[in-house]
Amino acid sequence: MQTNVSKKLISFASDNYSPVHPDVMDAIVEANSGQAKAYGEDEYTKLSDDIFKKHFGESIDVYYVFNGTAANVLGLKALTEPFHSIICAETAHINGDECGAPERFTGCKILAIPSTDGKIAIEQIKKYLYHIGNHHRNQPKVISITEPTEYGTVYTPQEIKKIADYAHENGLYLHMDGARLSNAAASLNVSLREITIDAGVDVLSFGGTKNGIMSGETVIFFNKPDIGYNFKFIRKQGMQLVSKMRYISAQFIAFLSNDLWLKNAKHANEMATILENELKSIPKIKITQKVETNVVFAIMPKECISQAQEKYPFYIWDAEISEVRLMTSFDTKKENILEFVEYIKQLSH
Amino acid sequence: MQTNVSKKLISFASDNYSPVHPDVMDAIVEANSGQAKAYGEDEYTKLSDDIFKKHFGESIDVYYVFNGTAANVLGLKALTEPFHSIICAETAHINGDECGAPERFTGCKILAIPSTDGKIAIEQIKKYLYHIGNHHRNQPKVISITEPTEYGTVYTPQEIKKIADYAHENGLYLHMDGARLSNAAASLNVSLREITIDAGVDVLSFGGTKNGIMSGETVIFFNKPDIGYNFKFIRKQGMQLVSKMRYISAQFIAFLSNDLWLKNAKHANEMATILENELKSIPKIKITQKVETNVVFAIMPKECISQAQEKYPFYIWDAEISEVRLMTSFDTKKENILEFVEYIKQLSH
Amino acid sequence: MQTNVSKKLISFASDNYSPVHPDVMDAIVEANSGQAKAYGEDEYTKLSDDIFKKHFGESIDVYYVFNGTAANVLGLKALTEPFHSIICAETAHINGDECGAPERFTGCKILAIPSTDGKIAIEQIKKYLYHIGNHHRNQPKVISITEPTEYGTVYTPQEIKKIADYAHENGLYLHMDGARLSNAAASLNVSLREITIDAGVDVLSFGGTKNGIMSGETVIFFNKPDIGYNFKFIRKQGMQLVSKMRYISAQFIAFLSNDLWLKNAKHANEMATILENELKSIPKIKITQKVETNVVFAIMPKECISQAQEKYPFYIWDAEISEVRLMTSFDTKKENILEFVEYIKQLSH
Amino acid sequence: MQTNVSKKLISFASDNYSPVHPDVMDAIVEANSGQAKAYGEDEYTKLSDDIFKKHFGESIDVYYVFNGTAANVLGLKALTEPFHSIICAETAHINGDECGAPERFTGCKILAIPSTDGKIAIEQIKKYLYHIGNHHRNQPKVISITEPTEYGTVYTPQEIKKIADYAHENGLYLHMDGARLSNAAASLNVSLREITIDAGVDVLSFGGTKNGIMSGETVIFFNKPDIGYNFKFIRKQGMQLVSKMRYISAQFIAFLSNDLWLKNAKHANEMATILENELKSIPKIKITQKVETNVVFAIMPKECISQAQEKYPFYIWDAEISEVRLMTSFDTKKENILEFVEYIKQLSH
Repeated sequence: MQTNVSKKLISFASDNYSPVHPDVMDAIVEANSGQAKAYGEDEYTKLSDDIFKKHFGESIDVYYVFNGTAANVLGLKALTEPFHSIICAETAHINGDECGAPERFTGCKILAIPSTDGKIAIEQIKKYLYHIGNHHRNQPKVISITEPTEYGTVYTPQEIKKIADYAHENGLYLHMDGARLSNAAASLNVSLREITIDAGVDVLSFGGTKNGIMSGETVIFFNKPDIGYNFKFIRKQGMQLVSKMRYISAQFIAFLSNDLWLKNAKHANEMATILENELKSIPKIKITQKVETNVVFAIMPKECISQAQEKYPFYIWDAEISEVRLMTSFDTKKENILEFVEYIKQLSH
Repeated sequence: MQTNVSKKLISFASDNYSPVHPDVMDAIVEANSGQAKAYGEDEYTKLSDDIFKKHFGESIDVYYVFNGTAANVLGLKALTEPFHSIICAETAHINGDECGAPERFTGCKILAIPSTDGKIAIEQIKKYLYHIGNHHRNQPKVISITEPTEYGTVYTPQEIKKIADYAHENGLYLHMDGARLSNAAASLNVSLREITIDAGVDVLSFGGTKNGIMSGETVIFFNKPDIGYNFKFIRKQGMQLVSKMRYISAQFIAFLSNDLWLKNAKHANEMATILENELKSIPKIKITQKVETNVVFAIMPKECISQAQEKYPFYIWDAEISEVRLMTSFDTKKENILEFVEYIKQLSH
Repeated sequence: MQTNVSKKLISFASDNYSPVHPDVMDAIVEANSGQAKAYGEDEYTKLSDDIFKKHFGESIDVYYVFNGTAANVLGLKALTEPFHSIICAETAHINGDECGAPERFTGCKILAIPSTDGKIAIEQIKKYLYHIGNHHRNQPKVISITEPTEYGTVYTPQEIKKIADYAHENGLYLHMDGARLSNAAASLNVSLREITIDAGVDVLSFGGTKNGIMSGETVIFFNKPDIGYNFKFIRKQGMQLVSKMRYISAQFIAFLSNDLWLKNAKHANEMATILENELKSIPKIKITQKVETNVVFAIMPKECISQAQEKYPFYIWDAEISEVRLMTSFDTKKENILEFVEYIKQLSH
Repeated sequence: MQTNVSKKLISFASDNYSPVHPDVMDAIVEANSGQAKAYGEDEYTKLSDDIFKKHFGESIDVYYVFNGTAANVLGLKALTEPFHSIICAETAHINGDECGAPERFTGCKILAIPSTDGKIAIEQIKKYLYHIGNHHRNQPKVISITEPTEYGTVYTPQEIKKIADYAHENGLYLHMDGARLSNAAASLNVSLREITIDAGVDVLSFGGTKNGIMSGETVIFFNKPDIGYNFKFIRKQGMQLVSKMRYISAQFIAFLSNDLWLKNAKHANEMATILENELKSIPKIKITQKVETNVVFAIMPKECISQAQEKYPFYIWDAEISEVRLMTSFDTKKENILEFVEYIKQLSH
């Protein structure tokens, strides 16, 4: 095969612009030997399940799916009836970036809470609980938080616990979108279970694709006797049953072994800190969110945005105020950051 | 990584027990270099699109999704309103093997036609057209055929054309589930377009996973000004937008180049013929379907089925009559067939 | 108001061509005095609930909805998850006459069993239970029977009990479409509870519209601690919460008092028997189903069908074999039957 | 029938606490003579259709349904694909009072705009149009306004026209929830068509139940060649096809003849004005919304709310600020208002 595809893209668009980490690719290649049972009955998936239990404890159920939208949507479906509602921050991926898949597949209403830093507070949730029992209104059933948030900020274990307790006291579940959970754990210097099962999360979307995996996310149920018991049917009807599943689970074996998830996340986070610090030296640029994981939000002179985007792709977050999102990844290099910041400096003169 | 996974499975369960073909794996590894735009904006996907056009003509739209169930369901959604119905053979994958995903996501009713060889005939469709315009009934909108059928039999281009013409004369679309289309083309010794666009198919699910790909199927629209124009929204809302899409399209580049799709399919078909011939030598075994592609259906003494399954996994198709399905693949070896048949001979004594 | 609407239609099309019974209309008019709480919080609904309990026992929950399709669909929704399947006769209203509303609103697959008399037998159900636990298949959860069937035939209490026991032994529910349940009870000379709760039915659609009510059907749950507990949300989200509910419940008060339901049903049934007997005197006519309630199925000379329909509307059931459906109602008069049969005689000469 | 139902309720809860207007009841009784074709093929429905055309013009299509939630939801379904979004005020019935039926049945996302007076302005809509073409986001397709709003305020014809033009320029439809449209027309002293078809509305939910009808709402399509052409299937699959439809259409014949709709609406509006004026005389009460139709919003001393509600039922609108909603109706009497206000006076001392 001769693709002649140019290989020199440097971007701050998304951690899914990155390639697959070599260790993960090696695991895929190694798994490619001979026949294996399909649909998760293979040896790789059994081994991967065991490794997940080492991280999250023995009482979990892990289900592999193709992508993050599916992990969120199917996990939420497992918790809800169509007349329920799901409370989340307005910035949540499930609210704004999944083309309505959550409403479409769960039938539920999404109740989006305005948020300046991507987090939600208990005070904001309260008003939605007034109508419990009123058949004219969707019944709140799930609070969904993103860790780290879409703004890259992190909830501490204590903050999560507080929301989990509030949810449980009110008969709600706590769902966590952990598409970049590794980055939050790295930032907080805690284990994966400290910000999930130990903090009271009921269902977790745990992501790999944004941290070095090719394709693969998981839905993890932390209270298996009560929830998730029919998830295999939800997954299949949700078009997310992987036939050659060994190629997903082999990736997670590599990802969750030898601290690869953590090393990748730490590196990406560090790169964001460097990027933040470098950008701070440019007078016309204003950092708009606390940099806690692998993303920097900044207001940038309108005139230099589109030119900069062309050379180093990134996303505009809020066009009205010229706010952009700059994301780093496990493969971001310090020299690329310096090169990019230098270019911005020139443009913003 | 040390998985200690045993590598010696020989099976006739499904072509998705097979590994990824080395050429496809090479393409994946080659694509793993540097950053690339996500969601299909990358160079690999552009190249793959071009190769698809070489096979199917310039007037097509190709969309990549993760798996075959999604390719079928989302393609059907693009053709229907929820009050429509979809006519197919009772044996169709969309009727019996997708856990109701088609009904769930399209809202439509599936009208399943009894079939002894997996094919449907126009005479059987007619009765469903009586109620056109009657608001008490779902309105037929799509005829869906599988090529090759779930029984491994193939429609000739002429047979397909006849159904397509009938569909179009009656205001219906023709959808084709081509999860194993390569095997049909190889069997008929025709190009991919002769049994699809040239025969009047409107929308095709074209599969790779069962013929050497890791994960990846496509939905191809053959009349792009009229149908499929909003498919990108259907795909995203259907949870099937691939972020690191280069790893899917790179596979198809390899698959559709150098006749790999055809070589793999031919080999699998030949293995099925060998298997059929060998099995015929066993008196207690009765072949139940014409062997035209890579599968053999056979009635086997009940007492030897479970024992044989343990050593060489395969599926029971109809428990009541002891009918089993034996599937070959691109990686099936002649010696494995001989070994298997020898074992069956011993068991059936 | 001067509508100038001609009032002289005589038809055998459907019992919903009939007007509202005078006693029911009187109840509506009587309820039309002053203000009353909306959404079922009124005194009429409380009273109606009590009368239902006299018929069906104290352990029930009654919910009023607008029409029969909704009663079926919402009742089935209360029993199922979208990955379930619902087993019924091919002739069932939920299969053929609700434009796919059951699939659309429940997400489930309908498994339709061929039936020559509208009934299903346990032997026919068995094959659908093979795949319990297999995530590629919808999981059977409900058997739905119609009493009387769409062919007017009736299940005896013993027959219902046998199906109910079979359902419960296999973890399924028994749903009954009782749009014309009164006619079955009248035919069998049993109480309403003998063919429902006492025979093991879990959820009942109990109809009034086809037996003298203007508009109004009910969903009755017979095992209230376990099922139906969230039905009020399903009903509202299903667009079937009646605001001025007193006008529905007042109708049921009249309908279920003074044996009105029974008198109406008996009369309709008797008229069908007379019609059957009269038609039997015409050599070219063949009665095709046992006449047990208020409908006669007959094969009629093709040439006289459309002419007869014009004067006395009725439905063609099976155009291929010239089978028609002739339905009687609480307001059918013997002289109308004689007049109609006389006309058929003339036409069939 | 002896219901012993007490008849002396005086309430300000909702106009659906009111009985059926005597003229409407007379029409129902008159329609109750002999048999009539079902499902809208009757003479009453033809006549009603004609009367609708006198009000709204010849180019319309009218469809009768049971209730207002269904009129809204099915009308919106006729305009949308599931990946679309619907823009409305946060106070809209479709957003807060239909238990998520719009999301459930259309699959769309509801984009709710904060509003202090129940209206939306074009400036608020703009931000939702940024993502046209972006497959990660639901695509805006409908603006839905309520006339009068849930706060009883009215859009002028000019205001509606402006929103309609904006919608059409951007490829969107304008839907109007007109559950109380009569009250808006009465308030503005315009015809029904001036604030609907003439102002650019594409689809209208036109209500009767809240203004003297027993049960019955309509969905009216104003551009029939393009939209609504398959609505009969949507209605049936939406469980809203009325079998004995003459009893719905007869009500609308009475309602739309002899200006009954207008007289009822005018009276209700006048009663609200009287109520407003009387309440203003109580120092502790603050009117919170402009009174333009048949509802008064007021902040009332917390301590007198629950006591007052017991005697004269009404709804609390916003518990946090002790805001209540007081609704008048066609049957509200001036003496009841005076009695009620007197009671409030006593309580608020």
